[in-house]
Amino acid sequence: MQRIEDANDEALQRMLSGDPVLVDVVPATEAIPVLKERMILHAGPPIEWGRMCGPMRGAICGIAVFEGWAEDLEDAGKLADAGAFEFHPNHHFDAVGPMTGMTTISQPLMVVENRTFGNRAYCAVNEGLGKVMRFGGNDAEVLDRLRWLRDEFGPALGRAIRQAGGVPLKSLTARGLTMGDEMHQRNVACSGLTLRALAPALAETTPDSAALSKALAFIGGNDQFYLNIAMAMGKSIMDPVRGIDASSIVTAMSRNGTDFGIRVSGTGDRWFTAPVEMPEGLYFPGFTEADANPDMGDSTIVETMGLGGFAMGASPAVAGFVGAGAASEAGNFTRTMSEITVGENPEWSIPSMDYQGVPTGIDIRMVVETGLAPTINTGIAHKEPGIGQVGAGVVRAPMACFEQALLAFAESVGVS
Amino acid sequence: MQRIEDANDEALQRMLSGDPVLVDVVPATEAIPVLKERMILHAGPPIEWGRMCGPMRGAICGIAVFEGWAEDLEDAGKLADAGAFEFHPNHHFDAVGPMTGMTTISQPLMVVENRTFGNRAYCAVNEGLGKVMRFGGNDAEVLDRLRWLRDEFGPALGRAIRQAGGVPLKSLTARGLTMGDEMHQRNVACSGLTLRALAPALAETTPDSAALSKALAFIGGNDQFYLNIAMAMGKSIMDPVRGIDASSIVTAMSRNGTDFGIRVSGTGDRWFTAPVEMPEGLYFPGFTEADANPDMGDSTIVETMGLGGFAMGASPAVAGFVGAGAASEAGNFTRTMSEITVGENPEWSIPSMDYQGVPTGIDIRMVVETGLAPTINTGIAHKEPGIGQVGAGVVRAPMACFEQALLAFAESVGVS
Repeated sequence: MQRIEDANDEALQRMLSGDPVLVDVVPATEAIPVLKERMILHAGPPIEWGRMCGPMRGAICGIAVFEGWAEDLEDAGKLADAGAFEFHPNHHFDAVGPMTGMTTISQPLMVVENRTFGNRAYCAVNEGLGKVMRFGGNDAEVLDRLRWLRDEFGPALGRAIRQAGGVPLKSLTARGLTMGDEMHQRNVACSGLTLRALAPALAETTPDSAALSKALAFIGGNDQFYLNIAMAMGKSIMDPVRGIDASSIVTAMSRNGTDFGIRVSGTGDRWFTAPVEMPEGLYFPGFTEADANPDMGDSTIVETMGLGGFAMGASPAVAGFVGAGAASEAGNFTRTMSEITVGENPEWSIPSMDYQGVPTGIDIRMVVETGLAPTINTGIAHKEPGIGQVGAGVVRAPMACFEQALLAFAESVGVS
Repeated sequence: MQRIEDANDEALQRMLSGDPVLVDVVPATEAIPVLKERMILHAGPPIEWGRMCGPMRGAICGIAVFEGWAEDLEDAGKLADAGAFEFHPNHHFDAVGPMTGMTTISQPLMVVENRTFGNRAYCAVNEGLGKVMRFGGNDAEVLDRLRWLRDEFGPALGRAIRQAGGVPLKSLTARGLTMGDEMHQRNVACSGLTLRALAPALAETTPDSAALSKALAFIGGNDQFYLNIAMAMGKSIMDPVRGIDASSIVTAMSRNGTDFGIRVSGTGDRWFTAPVEMPEGLYFPGFTEADANPDMGDSTIVETMGLGGFAMGASPAVAGFVGAGAASEAGNFTRTMSEITVGENPEWSIPSMDYQGVPTGIDIRMVVETGLAPTINTGIAHKEPGIGQVGAGVVRAPMACFEQALLAFAESVGVS
């Protein structure tokens, strides 16, 4: 139907015309004023405590202790059992979070503004690798780091971003694609480019040498620092694409470790969910697939805008890291994703593919027709609470989400 | 002859076992104690004033003013005509310099130590892009920057490097190859990785916020910052390969803008020279090939150790920058260079070529037999003094150097 094509053209144009700029770091209550005590935003579509996976439960207990709502992890678990906490998806509050995706009142949130549309999106600061809350970690080391992020690093980063006048992310991301990042499991280039952009302003606004050195080392020591920025960028780019009548473009893909959910422009903010799948990947020494939790996190917003698994061709080095086969064949993932997308992003191009733009705008009709589900590059959490990351891999979005969405979409355009 | 194969095996092993570490920045007189007033080290093989090209003359007049040996550029030219300056190649003093490659008593030199062999190599700090002395620039802006490098930035960088305990370059370079650098015309990744490695130590050792911010911005704003580090690394890796009896491996390639010179392990420190060629490349807006000076600089030490044009496959994005054809075909340059090299470097590998190591150890016999001259990625200077960089391109080393060297080599092994 021409009506659908026109709506999808509009969706694609909104995606391509987005102008995301990292503008600030603010306390979560400033970003999301409705946040309150005992309210926890999490990754993925809505889910109740009883159905949550191990690492999500671990993170919730940890964040409850961090926020002072529970005396210890055991107490937090009992409070959760008793229904003391209110749970909502990040996506319902302009926010995203990687893996477990905890967002609560006292965390600092990075702010990305889409200057074309004026909307803002939020994401917490990436904690680093290993035993971290987003992978279900919740011990003293994890909570201490969160305190430092809240009290020292977050405010310092915010000062620097404001001093620098913001960091335009579209061009920085474009550059990262020429440096082997795909912005989901490989962010080393963009993390470095971000440090480069902000280091002078950090020096100007954090005069204490020790604090400054620690902040610079924290950014410089975390190859995934940019992931959370890329996610807020993705949310800021995709939110204006929501609610276009008759558009079959996916506006969000997200998982809570139990369910995978997608949203489609023409069907508004309804989630179409299915059981989440297990990534196929490579495990860190000492861990195997038996330790793995199924796929989790809001980070699939990165694939939703054409990066991550969709940009695998830009990142031959990530293919080995996620166990996706020969590095020289990485472009095949990108070519395959071109079969389920309505366009390419000319500003985000892949040099080794002669500057082909990343596949952009997932059309649920094409996904169902081709049987090709979106490819996602992802981290893998241990299935038990309190442990952390155990590997990285590739996972497919469940086809059932797209089949359900297509039925609802067909009904919405009157062809059911 | 088995004797030659054995000697070349030894040469390759010395190259591969090198362990280059950026250890310090020191005044040139400390690095090269024989340096004195009116003594100027330049890029390339030996050359007298009368045969020097325009940008080399421009740089010499500029550095003479900078050092206080001349009142102004005109005075400097007259002094040079009158034989007031003593010229020597950087290569004769453990040093290298990009393009014109000026090294004089009061400049700060970065120090790379090859910890396997204990030798050190030196290179000045990269000045940035555009109108800079290495491209023949010599006005007040150029000299002011050199003063700042001498008085402020160089000492600060040295303090940070010492505080950090040195920067191991082999692994950093390996990482850069996975991020699209080839270390000659593309150094954006390694420049960022260097900033990342040194920013915390810079913060600790340069407490003045304004000076620190300026230093961080200088490194972060110069995508070629790492080039001079890579060059000193190259010199530190290649120098221990010199003088292996019966080895036909190239130990240096270098150009002074008039002559291209090579040195071969088995023939010691003798230069084999031929007229230097004109790069084929792309020009910055407002400039054409008619403005270009022929090929220049010690930077070909990068190709001598298997990077630059030899690692083009790692850097599809550089192919467009230097006008080397389709980005997707960049690997062909690397494959071709494999035909004139005795091995691959397993620690410096190219993801998109399924981790093939960079072609390492140029054998003059293979160059002459195949007719394939080494491919070099290079910047292009304006042919007149005082202007600066006008483009970037690809150039071949002149075959005549290798033919002469092969004759001398044959004689040295008794098969003439």
